[in-house]
Amino acid sequence: MSVGATVGRPRDPEVDERITRAAAEVFGGEGWARFSVDAVARRAGVGKASIYLRWPNKEALLVAVFASRLSGVRDIDTGSLRDDLVALARQVLHAFLDESGGAVLRLMLEVESIPAGQEHLDRFLQSQATAARAIVHRGIDRGQLRPDISVTLLLNTISGGALNHALTTPSRSRAKVAANADRYAEELVDFVLASVTAP
Amino acid sequence: MSVGATVGRPRDPEVDERITRAAAEVFGGEGWARFSVDAVARRAGVGKASIYLRWPNKEALLVAVFASRLSGVRDIDTGSLRDDLVALARQVLHAFLDESGGAVLRLMLEVESIPAGQEHLDRFLQSQATAARAIVHRGIDRGQLRPDISVTLLLNTISGGALNHALTTPSRSRAKVAANADRYAEELVDFVLASVTAP
Repeated sequence: MSVGATVGRPRDPEVDERITRAAAEVFGGEGWARFSVDAVARRAGVGKASIYLRWPNKEALLVAVFASRLSGVRDIDTGSLRDDLVALARQVLHAFLDESGGAVLRLMLEVESIPAGQEHLDRFLQSQATAARAIVHRGIDRGQLRPDISVTLLLNTISGGALNHALTTPSRSRAKVAANADRYAEELVDFVLASVTAP
Repeated sequence: MSVGATVGRPRDPEVDERITRAAAEVFGGEGWARFSVDAVARRAGVGKASIYLRWPNKEALLVAVFASRLSGVRDIDTGSLRDDLVALARQVLHAFLDESGGAVLRLMLEVESIPAGQEHLDRFLQSQATAARAIVHRGIDRGQLRPDISVTLLLNTISGGALNHALTTPSRSRAKVAANADRYAEELVDFVLASVTAP
């Protein structure tokens, strides 16, 4: 059990969550150049001391954001190729559309100026590639996918189709689009799995 | 003919080009919050006076970036559905991978804090949607596309497939990936047009 600096008073996980959510929002909205403990404290509605009690500096706070909110996607074996891909597409969509979605995009864009940015981004992208490869192998084994399928192109069209959908959503519609994300994931996967050309 | 403030000396278009390229790079790399005439002058290797001779302030300079480098994509009627889509995918890829590619991504991410950002982004996205619709209509007319095809999903998978490819390219590989963009565009379109599922 992790105990805060105030003697005998355990850390409140609700405050941890509020701070990392605020940090994800500040980072996503303002970028690394304007990311500060001060800005995060203001958005979270806590004192700066509450943040420094938990993280020594803004670099450590950003690592906590990536650890808690960009943990990557998981391979979910539903027993069906289509549903495996829908589960993958849903996770990618939610990573981009959730309140910390801006943080992923910001990491992609500013990766070179962010401390350990490339490692965090690689872990996120690697989790997608690993899940996609596992899904494709099961699909080939079941005879549902052509054995020569390109995992990269499958991932680029599904993950990119999710990304484009999120990026072209104005922020005023974000909540509505996020609420419909599960259905969009199905449409996207069905589109990629079906031939679009006329028979 | 536009003539600069220095009497009798016409503006040098090579300098215009050098300044807007530098401005695109500063905006793409640093974002609107750190975009300044000073930073652009340093990167372009010109005096600030050369910039103020052409644009009254940084807002006007950014508009020049969008006008000269984010003019959008064009519908190219090649006579073939596949080649029309390849031409579209190539333009989108180059928009993201060229030296000003970061500027498009930055506009998408920071649209709300950028002066007239939404108008510029809408014009860019609208040009893609208009081109995609025209290509799809010709494809349906020729009997090559199912009449019930979703233009949005076609565009999201092709444009998103281009975007994901660009975003997952580390900057050290950007020149190499840009050089192979035309071939990637063909692979992406062939992937989307073909069914990936086993017959």
